Amino acid sequence: MANRQIVLDQLPRDRLSPDHFRLTEGPTPEPADGEVLVRTRYISLDAANRAWMQGATYRSALEAGTVMAGGALAEVVESRADHLKPGDFVFSDTGWQDFAVLPARRLAALPDLKPLTHLLSVYGVAGLTAYHGLLECGRPKPGETVVVSAAAGSVGSLVGQIAKILGCRVVGIAGGAAKCAWLKDELGFDEAVDYKAGETRRALRAACPDGIDVYFDNVGGEIFEACLFNMANHGRIACCGAVSSYDGPAPPHGPRGVPGLIVTRRLKLEGFVVSDFADKNPKALSDLTSWVADGRLKVQEDIIDGLENAPAALIGLLAGENRGKRMIRVA
Amino acid sequence: MANRQIVLDQLPRDRLSPDHFRLTEGPTPEPADGEVLVRTRYISLDAANRAWMQGATYRSALEAGTVMAGGALAEVVESRADHLKPGDFVFSDTGWQDFAVLPARRLAALPDLKPLTHLLSVYGVAGLTAYHGLLECGRPKPGETVVVSAAAGSVGSLVGQIAKILGCRVVGIAGGAAKCAWLKDELGFDEAVDYKAGETRRALRAACPDGIDVYFDNVGGEIFEACLFNMANHGRIACCGAVSSYDGPAPPHGPRGVPGLIVTRRLKLEGFVVSDFADKNPKALSDLTSWVADGRLKVQEDIIDGLENAPAALIGLLAGENRGKRMIRVA
Repeated sequence: MANRQIVLDQLPRDRLSPDHFRLTEGPTPEPADGEVLVRTRYISLDAANRAWMQGATYRSALEAGTVMAGGALAEVVESRADHLKPGDFVFSDTGWQDFAVLPARRLAALPDLKPLTHLLSVYGVAGLTAYHGLLECGRPKPGETVVVSAAAGSVGSLVGQIAKILGCRVVGIAGGAAKCAWLKDELGFDEAVDYKAGETRRALRAACPDGIDVYFDNVGGEIFEACLFNMANHGRIACCGAVSSYDGPAPPHGPRGVPGLIVTRRLKLEGFVVSDFADKNPKALSDLTSWVADGRLKVQEDIIDGLENAPAALIGLLAGENRGKRMIRVA
Repeated sequence: MANRQIVLDQLPRDRLSPDHFRLTEGPTPEPADGEVLVRTRYISLDAANRAWMQGATYRSALEAGTVMAGGALAEVVESRADHLKPGDFVFSDTGWQDFAVLPARRLAALPDLKPLTHLLSVYGVAGLTAYHGLLECGRPKPGETVVVSAAAGSVGSLVGQIAKILGCRVVGIAGGAAKCAWLKDELGFDEAVDYKAGETRRALRAACPDGIDVYFDNVGGEIFEACLFNMANHGRIACCGAVSSYDGPAPPHGPRGVPGLIVTRRLKLEGFVVSDFADKNPKALSDLTSWVADGRLKVQEDIIDGLENAPAALIGLLAGENRGKRMIRVA
């Protein structure tokens, strides 16, 4: 079988472009003892894909000339491990290719869910990131004001809805009037601030007259700064990502007022990676499942067909094209 | 009686200079019911004095044309409140003047200690700030690496010694070889990094080969940045002050890597003001007293005579002239 692969041909020095990638074909690998051969079904596109190109993060930096790394929902085709059989679904870093051989040790068969794509969105990294980051780092109390950036994105759209379920007042920051209207009309956010309209700091002040108690930060940079200046005393910032600084040389200077405002307003900033809270996943998945079932949590997915479209889809995601969880349907 | 007063004549737009102050003489005020007349004995000089000129912090901004604000150890001269009598000592914002009338409601007589100045250093705001900030925000565990900046200053010199008492490996950052030698030879720090020698980030890496578990930040800016890049995963930063950014227009941009490194290294940054932990002061004072008594905590004070010298002494403190707690002996 042919194994199409998208290779990260060179590391970007500034903005990522399609020229940094190359589509090629490699052999389909054979699993050894303790390994499985999987077919990539859906590739998760994430801002973090770009951050990995800047240098070491919570994983080692990507290297030029290798298959582009990325998490995916994959189906076991051939198994040489006892706990997995053909037809099982797993989530793993398969890379951007049709087939991959993976060590079975760290893989677990995922539950059979409809639609399958929810395993990449609400029940996958996006949903768990939203849930754990908000509850463990943000720790919102009912009645508090929660602000989330990249609010129409995969994580942000869930953070805002979960905060509403928890009884908070929720303000989303997103780019463009259409996304803002969607946040309020479809997802039930109390307010939405369009950062492309400018004057974000002032607009936030109007939307959060008593200050921000919890800011869930997906973007860093100027929006982080605008939120920082509007934090209430003893506010908490859950640091989830910094997409505004990923698509360029790393790392830029931080927001103004750091650390000054952290001190005077007694803020708490906490960075996290979703795997830190793996022990709390059962409770998270139980909550998420019941909220989806009773219609309180709406799941927006943005599915693009074709492995060959992954580079353009990632570049579009970095530019804020998507609404909800973007993924590539490979097979 | 004459009441000498130092007035903040104009707010500095850039660096603070003696020209921003003016020595004048006002009447000695008379206490009304519920008030006390106090004589200022020792004025506490703090980097925060300068921060108050930049704008609202945890207190309202200073205004030009008024007596310079500042905490002091003062002696009750005349009391119109039941719980205070002449000869009692109190700590309060008397301002930079010989006499002040204060509402008695928020004042408490301080214990009679020798030397009296310890009420401004180890048993005052400096000692409590070091103790609470390190224990409540830094939460160091024995064997962890603790780094403190402005390590030869009033707070830093105590933070490092307390961390040693708690069983940590301690690295101080200070300006100049003499201060660094003092930290190691007199105060028992394991290592000292001279930020004036340049290459702070590299020097810290050498001094902290396993990364920094707790960084007690008194300075912000480039030193904060150098520490940030050397933090261990799950490290904690106690944000106490940002003296590097106080003596100029406010506020500058933050360190590079914020919030990126906060996320990838899962750091926790926490701002605090000492009064947040007032309920824990009895335990803090009990510990500090016993450590001083058994010689494990050395108290360095830097006492300058004469109210008229307060402006130059504050400017010198902002430039890092002092070692230990700087104060003005007024009477």
